[in-house]
Amino acid sequence: MSGNTFGKIFCFTGFGESHGDFIGGVIDGCPSGIELDFNAIQFELNRRKPGQSEITTQRKEPDEVKFISGIFESKTTGMPLAFLIANADARSKDYSHIKDMFRPSHADFTWHQKFGHRDYRGGGRSSARETATRVVAGAIAKQVLQKVNISFVSFTNSIGNITAKNIPVNPDLDQVESNLVRCPDKESAKAMEELVKKVKKEGDTVGGVVECRINNVPAGLGAPVFDKLEADLAKAMLSINASKGFEIGSGFKGTEMKGSEHNDSWQNADGKFSTKTNFSGGIQGGVSNGMPIVFKVAFKPVATIIKDQDSIDSDGNKVIIKGKGRHDPCVVPRAVPIVEAMAAMVILDHIMLNNTVIFDAL
Amino acid sequence: MSGNTFGKIFCFTGFGESHGDFIGGVIDGCPSGIELDFNAIQFELNRRKPGQSEITTQRKEPDEVKFISGIFESKTTGMPLAFLIANADARSKDYSHIKDMFRPSHADFTWHQKFGHRDYRGGGRSSARETATRVVAGAIAKQVLQKVNISFVSFTNSIGNITAKNIPVNPDLDQVESNLVRCPDKESAKAMEELVKKVKKEGDTVGGVVECRINNVPAGLGAPVFDKLEADLAKAMLSINASKGFEIGSGFKGTEMKGSEHNDSWQNADGKFSTKTNFSGGIQGGVSNGMPIVFKVAFKPVATIIKDQDSIDSDGNKVIIKGKGRHDPCVVPRAVPIVEAMAAMVILDHIMLNNTVIFDAL
Amino acid sequence: MSGNTFGKIFCFTGFGESHGDFIGGVIDGCPSGIELDFNAIQFELNRRKPGQSEITTQRKEPDEVKFISGIFESKTTGMPLAFLIANADARSKDYSHIKDMFRPSHADFTWHQKFGHRDYRGGGRSSARETATRVVAGAIAKQVLQKVNISFVSFTNSIGNITAKNIPVNPDLDQVESNLVRCPDKESAKAMEELVKKVKKEGDTVGGVVECRINNVPAGLGAPVFDKLEADLAKAMLSINASKGFEIGSGFKGTEMKGSEHNDSWQNADGKFSTKTNFSGGIQGGVSNGMPIVFKVAFKPVATIIKDQDSIDSDGNKVIIKGKGRHDPCVVPRAVPIVEAMAAMVILDHIMLNNTVIFDAL
Amino acid sequence: MSGNTFGKIFCFTGFGESHGDFIGGVIDGCPSGIELDFNAIQFELNRRKPGQSEITTQRKEPDEVKFISGIFESKTTGMPLAFLIANADARSKDYSHIKDMFRPSHADFTWHQKFGHRDYRGGGRSSARETATRVVAGAIAKQVLQKVNISFVSFTNSIGNITAKNIPVNPDLDQVESNLVRCPDKESAKAMEELVKKVKKEGDTVGGVVECRINNVPAGLGAPVFDKLEADLAKAMLSINASKGFEIGSGFKGTEMKGSEHNDSWQNADGKFSTKTNFSGGIQGGVSNGMPIVFKVAFKPVATIIKDQDSIDSDGNKVIIKGKGRHDPCVVPRAVPIVEAMAAMVILDHIMLNNTVIFDAL
Repeated sequence: MSGNTFGKIFCFTGFGESHGDFIGGVIDGCPSGIELDFNAIQFELNRRKPGQSEITTQRKEPDEVKFISGIFESKTTGMPLAFLIANADARSKDYSHIKDMFRPSHADFTWHQKFGHRDYRGGGRSSARETATRVVAGAIAKQVLQKVNISFVSFTNSIGNITAKNIPVNPDLDQVESNLVRCPDKESAKAMEELVKKVKKEGDTVGGVVECRINNVPAGLGAPVFDKLEADLAKAMLSINASKGFEIGSGFKGTEMKGSEHNDSWQNADGKFSTKTNFSGGIQGGVSNGMPIVFKVAFKPVATIIKDQDSIDSDGNKVIIKGKGRHDPCVVPRAVPIVEAMAAMVILDHIMLNNTVIFDAL
Repeated sequence: MSGNTFGKIFCFTGFGESHGDFIGGVIDGCPSGIELDFNAIQFELNRRKPGQSEITTQRKEPDEVKFISGIFESKTTGMPLAFLIANADARSKDYSHIKDMFRPSHADFTWHQKFGHRDYRGGGRSSARETATRVVAGAIAKQVLQKVNISFVSFTNSIGNITAKNIPVNPDLDQVESNLVRCPDKESAKAMEELVKKVKKEGDTVGGVVECRINNVPAGLGAPVFDKLEADLAKAMLSINASKGFEIGSGFKGTEMKGSEHNDSWQNADGKFSTKTNFSGGIQGGVSNGMPIVFKVAFKPVATIIKDQDSIDSDGNKVIIKGKGRHDPCVVPRAVPIVEAMAAMVILDHIMLNNTVIFDAL
Repeated sequence: MSGNTFGKIFCFTGFGESHGDFIGGVIDGCPSGIELDFNAIQFELNRRKPGQSEITTQRKEPDEVKFISGIFESKTTGMPLAFLIANADARSKDYSHIKDMFRPSHADFTWHQKFGHRDYRGGGRSSARETATRVVAGAIAKQVLQKVNISFVSFTNSIGNITAKNIPVNPDLDQVESNLVRCPDKESAKAMEELVKKVKKEGDTVGGVVECRINNVPAGLGAPVFDKLEADLAKAMLSINASKGFEIGSGFKGTEMKGSEHNDSWQNADGKFSTKTNFSGGIQGGVSNGMPIVFKVAFKPVATIIKDQDSIDSDGNKVIIKGKGRHDPCVVPRAVPIVEAMAAMVILDHIMLNNTVIFDAL
Repeated sequence: MSGNTFGKIFCFTGFGESHGDFIGGVIDGCPSGIELDFNAIQFELNRRKPGQSEITTQRKEPDEVKFISGIFESKTTGMPLAFLIANADARSKDYSHIKDMFRPSHADFTWHQKFGHRDYRGGGRSSARETATRVVAGAIAKQVLQKVNISFVSFTNSIGNITAKNIPVNPDLDQVESNLVRCPDKESAKAMEELVKKVKKEGDTVGGVVECRINNVPAGLGAPVFDKLEADLAKAMLSINASKGFEIGSGFKGTEMKGSEHNDSWQNADGKFSTKTNFSGGIQGGVSNGMPIVFKVAFKPVATIIKDQDSIDSDGNKVIIKGKGRHDPCVVPRAVPIVEAMAAMVILDHIMLNNTVIFDAL
């Protein structure tokens, strides 16, 4: 229990370092009898993988997943699904020059304090490389959820100070994938791309916000007190590298509203109950209300930059960190499928938990 | 496991409804040999309790806590600390008129969907009344943490569109408690109080933001992947009733910064390592770095208002909800000690977990 | 997490000391909508309670349970069921004379080593008094299980060297309750009663074996690897005070058999599959097979005796422990309902977990 | 959460089927900074592996373990240790003839009921092949425990009706490994070997009992109520394939004793406290008392036999199961290292948990 496991029923454990031979994971608790679509899993991995475009890190990883257990006659067996992804392009020497230095806003110092040592090869397991395994687990969760028609769409809402203005109410995947930054507002996307390229040229990085929308979530998922559905989503999102904030529905802006404006009134359209507005973001009292679940996640600018930076080494001596290596000028486009993957794991877990609430045993 | 338990090692389970005889809780995993200061626990309860001022709900609850186990010769025994708080002023009849109605942005509909029934007496366990028990557990966690010098200060950062402008770097409790809204910026506090009173007069409610600062957290708490310290804080905060967002350090604003601005450079002052800035909010790579932990929590306007509202009943018929009962025009001042309590539970849990990382067994 | 919680989905947390005002518990995860039969709960408590006959301890406890949450309009709400049982007849002074002594085969020394202190008033929470709360939780689990026709019967199989010889294949409750030792073989029961009375007269104690049979368990409960159904039953049984062993089906005797004798062959009677023998005890490969689940639990002689005993005090000085206080000459008759209660919690938990195996979501 | 994870802090998750390419596992929560002895791990695997002697199954598996994460510069990093063991000699065709049949006392029927399908290739994950991964995890736990001088010795106590009579008080590994059946009583070992060979010739199998002794366990491990140390050991042992019983200290025999005989009196030898007898088996009130922990595990005769057996297929038709394939005439000699591995995981987990009881934070 060092925090490498996520979920209570659909339970994912990740392993592997950025510069080892493999990263991988084990899913225990995937329902049995699910026929997996491996192309769909690879599609999600491709959306996350490095080197996918001129605005991502140039590290080249095929990121092909190999399953080694839990599948028989092409269906899940109910036993652990274990999988591996090879690290093809790990260049350990890239990192040797910073072996004893504490890079600003990296995990170098904290890891050293916690574990009494430090894996300086690309940050070991503090590297975002491990998120590839989350995408695999999330892709499987999404396939299970498709059986009850639940779908996900995540996209870039802002990069730096450019916020998308014309996002469709319910964007589709094609719109998201139509540009390098994964923003379904084409015009804003263009400006975002230019910003990222400019920042990259400066050897700098920039942050942004990912929005996620989950459709067709049935009412009744979640729990009223500590395991509120939004609480589990918040944990999932803040567990993603570089994330600094989470908000659901009206979020921080909603704090400026009055109750009479913010309250979502119920209406009945031919027996289908819905709310006129959705400031709640699809969750009330910790439990889904049948409306789309809508939330945002803030990502800081990537800490690895090419510009020189002041810092200290482990003896406390002043050093200058000289940027080398490959890095992302903006993590947001690659974070989109990770947000979706984590959201899928949360929703599936709560659906499986929900089966236990009313006694309908066997 | 219906989500009424929080924490892994310092493990709190709450129980009780808003309109039953008691609410209460059980803490399993509190270290043994801790001498408890019951006045300090009561002090925190008083900061949360209803009826404490003219800008809170007028429900009158003494909120006195009675411990029934886990203490012997005035010290914790290491066995469960169970406690009860009587519900003195529960008026069930206040709620009977909305028995079959779905109040906007309440848990009425979702609870009904999840459990197949609904406790209409003040929302049962979806009422924020249960947070009193969190305050007890948090007050105990804070007392344990005092032994290693860790301290907490939470305060109101904004109410509605009024954001405090002159908050001291490290406010003290007296400054926080010097006014009804718990904002350590006196001038802003005055404006906030006026806003809350105005809103109250309108029969409406307003939201706001609570900020929390944790001092003297040692480096090394947290975990690199799913159980990042900020992830557990985010879950804790989003589990509080009416919260809609969480951000750590630079948060959503930080997404507009560049990496070269946002990175927190390390410096060495006579052997004490610190960062020049604290955009990270005290956590890097999921693990505390020894700087103050700083985060914010967004609270929506309370859903219970006096103004008439449109909605439907459980048969789908249109109804008008007429506001009655006692409610808070703004939950933020009472949320301050709840935020602190939840933060204390997270930090203590991670300290106790951290004992297991390096093997120093017996 | 100091080990006072049992179960994953139907999750019971106990609290309270032998000599405090109350013992009690919280069940989180009980399905909603269950109408509880409080007389049935009290009936089970009466079967466990002290002072029930001349062969049990003479401590007098009415053991009446009071529920304080989780019930609305007489049905479970799905939220925590908290309950209290008052300690009416706790005589702390009975124990003061052994305050610093380590009683043989008690938890005095180990508790002192673990927690750095010791609750000498009747052992605090190491006293079997806490098992009353298990009986309440188990009685509720049994009521839920009745809805799917699962039933339990436990009884005394042996006391000292007297083993029952004519136990009916499937004894009923009346047979079990027809005598003080709870053995459905009347003749053996008589001999057992005499043995217990004789041992009591000597100021001594004696052990015995409880057998439990669970009828109508559907095939498919359990899990193939670590959470085998028999593994969870074993843990449940060894968690009961004074238990020293567990065996399922053929148990230790079965180790002397050959595979060709021990294997349970399948047969088909008009579409109902069963095994000709049941040496497996109703579980194969960790998963129930639809046959009755049958297991035994060994209970040592109670450690509290009236005879003088040599020991040491906490300074290592030799002392003589003089027996005083009230105690049971044989714990077995009162252990019968505890075994049943723990078994019921295990079975219900696995039924609720089982709902998650095949995806049939909403 | 389908039961493939064991342990709370030192947390092991296994995966892989008998007839896939690999079996493997992930340990999350191993302390950082431990230098692993890979030869010692392989030594334990060799003790468990098939084909090790003429009295085990002739399936040939090198059972070499490959670590793929969690180790840097030859020490554990505190992050997950993932490992793989290749399945070299899986012959799926051996099993095709029983594809639709329910073998007596196998998991065929129960698996089919639980998961809606069945992996007929050697039982998939219900095969004891998965226990190889437990041995790896246990070997690592043992290495960590060596640092505090805790050691384990397990051995065969009986096979069939032959019980060892002259077992040394504290046998050493050489004595255990001096014969094929792993019984440190040479004479009994010879008789046991002959019995196994005879049974093998008959195409039959036989059961037996493994005893385990844990030396130098400090007082204070365990917990007073549900997570009693013996309860966690019982669960661990009953989770091993083919185990049918567990007893600690005096066990089932102890039920025939009187309290005055069974009680373990405390004595003081130059400041070292111990008990004169050890009927408690090293645990009192759920917590270790500093004496050796001693327990026994019953293993039934292996279900796979060569003799013809009656059974039915999944349509309920009568069939005759003809024994083929490779199997163990007696599982006990190979179970010895598995018992030890599981015990090591339990003890390490409780040591790490114990760090949290008294607050000595950082």
